[in-house]
Amino acid sequence: MAVPPSTYPRRLLPLFLGLFQAALLLFFALFVTYDEPSAQAEDTSLVANQVYSTFPFFQDIQVMLVVGLGLLLTFLPRYGFSSLTHNFLLLNFSMQWALVLQGLLHHFHHGQIHLDLHKLLISEFAAVTVLISVGAILGRASPCQLLVMATCEIPTYLASEWVIVTSLGVLDVGGTITIHIFSCYFGLGVSKALFRATQQPLHPKESPTPSSDLMSLVGTLILWVFWPSFVAVLCQPGDAQHRAILNTLLAMSASAITTVVASSLLERDGKLSPGHLQNGSLAGGVAIGVVADMAMPPVAALALGSLSAVLCVLGFRFLTPLLGRKLTLHDQCGIHNLHGLPGILGAAASVVAVLVASKDNSGSRPSELSPVGGNASGVAEGHWGARGAGGQALCQAAGLAVALGVSLLAGLVTGAALRLPCLARPPERLCFDDSLYFKIQDEAESPGPDGSAEEGALALKERV
Amino acid sequence: MAVPPSTYPRRLLPLFLGLFQAALLLFFALFVTYDEPSAQAEDTSLVANQVYSTFPFFQDIQVMLVVGLGLLLTFLPRYGFSSLTHNFLLLNFSMQWALVLQGLLHHFHHGQIHLDLHKLLISEFAAVTVLISVGAILGRASPCQLLVMATCEIPTYLASEWVIVTSLGVLDVGGTITIHIFSCYFGLGVSKALFRATQQPLHPKESPTPSSDLMSLVGTLILWVFWPSFVAVLCQPGDAQHRAILNTLLAMSASAITTVVASSLLERDGKLSPGHLQNGSLAGGVAIGVVADMAMPPVAALALGSLSAVLCVLGFRFLTPLLGRKLTLHDQCGIHNLHGLPGILGAAASVVAVLVASKDNSGSRPSELSPVGGNASGVAEGHWGARGAGGQALCQAAGLAVALGVSLLAGLVTGAALRLPCLARPPERLCFDDSLYFKIQDEAESPGPDGSAEEGALALKERV
Amino acid sequence: MAVPPSTYPRRLLPLFLGLFQAALLLFFALFVTYDEPSAQAEDTSLVANQVYSTFPFFQDIQVMLVVGLGLLLTFLPRYGFSSLTHNFLLLNFSMQWALVLQGLLHHFHHGQIHLDLHKLLISEFAAVTVLISVGAILGRASPCQLLVMATCEIPTYLASEWVIVTSLGVLDVGGTITIHIFSCYFGLGVSKALFRATQQPLHPKESPTPSSDLMSLVGTLILWVFWPSFVAVLCQPGDAQHRAILNTLLAMSASAITTVVASSLLERDGKLSPGHLQNGSLAGGVAIGVVADMAMPPVAALALGSLSAVLCVLGFRFLTPLLGRKLTLHDQCGIHNLHGLPGILGAAASVVAVLVASKDNSGSRPSELSPVGGNASGVAEGHWGARGAGGQALCQAAGLAVALGVSLLAGLVTGAALRLPCLARPPERLCFDDSLYFKIQDEAESPGPDGSAEEGALALKERV
Repeated sequence: MAVPPSTYPRRLLPLFLGLFQAALLLFFALFVTYDEPSAQAEDTSLVANQVYSTFPFFQDIQVMLVVGLGLLLTFLPRYGFSSLTHNFLLLNFSMQWALVLQGLLHHFHHGQIHLDLHKLLISEFAAVTVLISVGAILGRASPCQLLVMATCEIPTYLASEWVIVTSLGVLDVGGTITIHIFSCYFGLGVSKALFRATQQPLHPKESPTPSSDLMSLVGTLILWVFWPSFVAVLCQPGDAQHRAILNTLLAMSASAITTVVASSLLERDGKLSPGHLQNGSLAGGVAIGVVADMAMPPVAALALGSLSAVLCVLGFRFLTPLLGRKLTLHDQCGIHNLHGLPGILGAAASVVAVLVASKDNSGSRPSELSPVGGNASGVAEGHWGARGAGGQALCQAAGLAVALGVSLLAGLVTGAALRLPCLARPPERLCFDDSLYFKIQDEAESPGPDGSAEEGALALKERV
Repeated sequence: MAVPPSTYPRRLLPLFLGLFQAALLLFFALFVTYDEPSAQAEDTSLVANQVYSTFPFFQDIQVMLVVGLGLLLTFLPRYGFSSLTHNFLLLNFSMQWALVLQGLLHHFHHGQIHLDLHKLLISEFAAVTVLISVGAILGRASPCQLLVMATCEIPTYLASEWVIVTSLGVLDVGGTITIHIFSCYFGLGVSKALFRATQQPLHPKESPTPSSDLMSLVGTLILWVFWPSFVAVLCQPGDAQHRAILNTLLAMSASAITTVVASSLLERDGKLSPGHLQNGSLAGGVAIGVVADMAMPPVAALALGSLSAVLCVLGFRFLTPLLGRKLTLHDQCGIHNLHGLPGILGAAASVVAVLVASKDNSGSRPSELSPVGGNASGVAEGHWGARGAGGQALCQAAGLAVALGVSLLAGLVTGAALRLPCLARPPERLCFDDSLYFKIQDEAESPGPDGSAEEGALALKERV
Repeated sequence: MAVPPSTYPRRLLPLFLGLFQAALLLFFALFVTYDEPSAQAEDTSLVANQVYSTFPFFQDIQVMLVVGLGLLLTFLPRYGFSSLTHNFLLLNFSMQWALVLQGLLHHFHHGQIHLDLHKLLISEFAAVTVLISVGAILGRASPCQLLVMATCEIPTYLASEWVIVTSLGVLDVGGTITIHIFSCYFGLGVSKALFRATQQPLHPKESPTPSSDLMSLVGTLILWVFWPSFVAVLCQPGDAQHRAILNTLLAMSASAITTVVASSLLERDGKLSPGHLQNGSLAGGVAIGVVADMAMPPVAALALGSLSAVLCVLGFRFLTPLLGRKLTLHDQCGIHNLHGLPGILGAAASVVAVLVASKDNSGSRPSELSPVGGNASGVAEGHWGARGAGGQALCQAAGLAVALGVSLLAGLVTGAALRLPCLARPPERLCFDDSLYFKIQDEAESPGPDGSAEEGALALKERV
């Protein structure tokens, strides 16, 4: 079963990554600097407060992406090491790549880019899109293919995010539209173009084992716990952030319970499906992102959480098999159910929230027409005020359309590029297998946990 | 071995949860709202500071309950997925249920309940009681039974907590009496009434495996790390909170070391028992809660940690088997050793601490008679001052008695209710088994990690 | 295979630990106290702010040491429970021991030691050295040997740290020289003296399995995420801390990518080695510590991260086998590759950074000559100013030399002491095996996860 070194090309990965890292060093040497240290005591205290208010959120998000999402992807029992490592590698690669591109696009002043924690955080958000998209083709794509995908996805994301947030002024503090919907349809586009009309057969190594399901659930729980930090980190401190945290907590709590209800009702024998739990519990977090800091009653967060969990479970039960059969669309982790459907629900909810908020406050408190809290990209309160609630609602819908269209198109093009033979897509026989990429002893070939033969020999040797 | 769908009733769980979720939505729609956004800049900064001072603690506690406690319960090797999921489900259900009840009891003003992070936190604390009590019957009760138990336990807890903290003015910042003792004896009461005089035989799936013991220990370590946040979150900021953190750290550190000593001395062959380590290391955290913010020397925290670890290990070694034999009392996770015995020790310590603190400071610094820091429920400093140290010590003892009495009685009644046949207690043969509730491939039935047969076939297919 | 209780001495461990804990209680009772509670409102707010600014970092570091490092060491498949427990035990023991010694040396005023969170943190840093050094002899040493090692290492560390930081005024905010280099060469010294010229044969239980490699990688990822907290916790709030966080993030990100490049290029068949990933990804964090808060461009952090990862992988590939063959030096976890080589690189970088920083700013901004931010031990800005950049550079080099010399010498002496027969070094046959120390069912002896025999019997019994 061992693959001879000659049959699988392995030099492209270090070449690609090595060149990238060298180019990054050059770029940083030429253009990137830190802010001048502040001379005044007041500034020092200001910087300290910024660090204390952002850094804990930043760490929470790092835990989510590196540990939580990594573990969630280990449900493939013989591909756990690859899932964790590729996720980790892609996060770092995409973050660095986004740092470069964002620096060039937005922060290039007098030939210099001033680095700070906020810019790292924004780059991390860009990297999230890649980590989500990977879910569509996990296990059947080589690391080189994933890196090329990341290379294409980051600039597309930055362009799409610029159009949606800066040009259209869409309110989306938790990245529901800009991150979740974009990355989901980008990933599905890639999957469609990469696998074309080939129906992917069920691979023998694809079925989770009890222990891989358990690890994956631990990943879900870590994501679930820290999700409020992801949604609230870019909110304006104060009421808006407080509300975003509460709304996210409520939505995720409702998701957790509703997932159990939906999964139990939909499965023929009433048993819960691990996949539903691993994904449905998080659906509320995806949906709530776009409305988390808006002025809406707590019940809306609960309802959104419940509905998105139902959508997610229904998607797993009916839509994914349907898409597989009718469109030969392969979605390994079911990202359409976790990020696509709840994302669209959230976007629709934001349209309603904008319209209702304006109605509630018409006349009496005009200042309330503007979004409570503002959003990450500095949309001024006046923005919405000037265009009116109807205009803002239209913008939210337009943002959704842009995210959908751009991501699908770019995903299809990227997926076609991933078919290049040099990118070394693994043969079907070797998919879902760590031993293709890592020096890991195959459990089937190992002498078992007892190793009784060697032990006996050793014991003998000692006695002699 | 597969259970035919007809033999085990599965419709009650989604029905119960679905109705609860619908009722919750209705309740929230009618009564729950957020605070009005604060118009003034000062208030915004105040809210922001409240978020920054509470939210990190809140997240720590979420990690403890969802990940740490969940993993601790995975020591049952074939019940890990159930342990994690039921723990997660019960946390969300109980938290929502406590939110409703607490809203109705305490925060109902002009027909509205104003939701904030603090109220969510208080509800989370109520939910902890359920998660602890479950330990007594883990693996032998159905999810429906657990949900009914939670439904009964939350209102009992709220009543008992109101009597203990608000009426009696008991000082218990870390919930030693109100949470740990209450939940322990409630759980034991349920177990007694549920299993009655039937001695529970050792189930073949009950013995931990090396890997399940390892996961469980990871859970312990997560709980151990974040325990100070649990104890200190409701302390008054400043000295009291600082001291609560330090006391908890000292107590838990002493527990960790003393557990090794005690376990090694008590086991016949000097080997350490995994169960002792998983529980004893946390015993200090249970005991210290009630005195963590009081004015006492650091050595008291160390001593309390050591003593509670000794009690915990002794409990596992002698008391649990004794209770099983003499009273046919079944305690699956040994909650009496982790929460009961150290809790009572802590309560006793609080009596001593109150008396000693008053002696130390008699005459010279009368303001020191009052508790340093105050506690969660807003007991004013004057409270203790008025009744004197002797009165306060009496109150602490009375609080312990109330917690014990109410919880045992309510637990027995609840346990009797859980015998209702419709709640679908699993037959002994199917206890401790994930496959009763989840679509999880039984490891015994799986073709093994190599799946060599299918792989060969697939390889053949590709070659053709 | 079961070891009869009589053949392996087990009473020393509880005796040693029990006496230590009793002595600690006595010491605390006599000398340790808390600060007086502050009477004024301003002080309360100050203490609260100190708690909020330190405690989240402290918790991050606790997670790193207890969970992250513990899991990293579980790569030995049948020694995972021992790795986690011994790591946990040693952390607590060393922290308490350091608390005593540091109290006596530095904080003894009027017969009292005032305990606070900062002092606990400093003691925790001391304990880290022990946890690192253990890596050299993991699996082949008894718990008693490890405790004796900790007993010797802590005072040596405190002395060495005092010379390096206080006397020499070395700048080392992240502990690269004082912690990483010291503990690495201490551990190697112990290993050399303990195993002498005996070549350690490859033990059959020493090879990681896929699942133990996965757990270990999770440990790496946890360490990776929280490393910035470790480096930045003792920085001056404001710019210095902000910069330290950013530099660490950049260095670790570069390490992660470069490790993949280096491992892939160096392994003959291009597959990645799990060991390289588990260690190389962290190398940047070791190297950056000493320069993290200095005024240097971001590219330097990236370069340092990349270089240290290359060094680490090269070390694993060539140096460790070489040292094993030529010097019969055994390094179980490869601590020389993770802590030694990157540490020396970091120390060298600090010499360069000091010299370059002074050149950059010569004349124009003399105040910039002094270190930006200052360091943990309160070296005043004037320190460096007075001795000039050349003097400071010399000091950095001298600090490196002191750390190397003291640690190697003390390690050799300690290792010789560990050969005392009463310390019960396990026989080779029983190394790397949890069942020597814990009541853990040997997986080889267990009836398998199905337990079909008992189950059938039980099913039968129920039917009857």
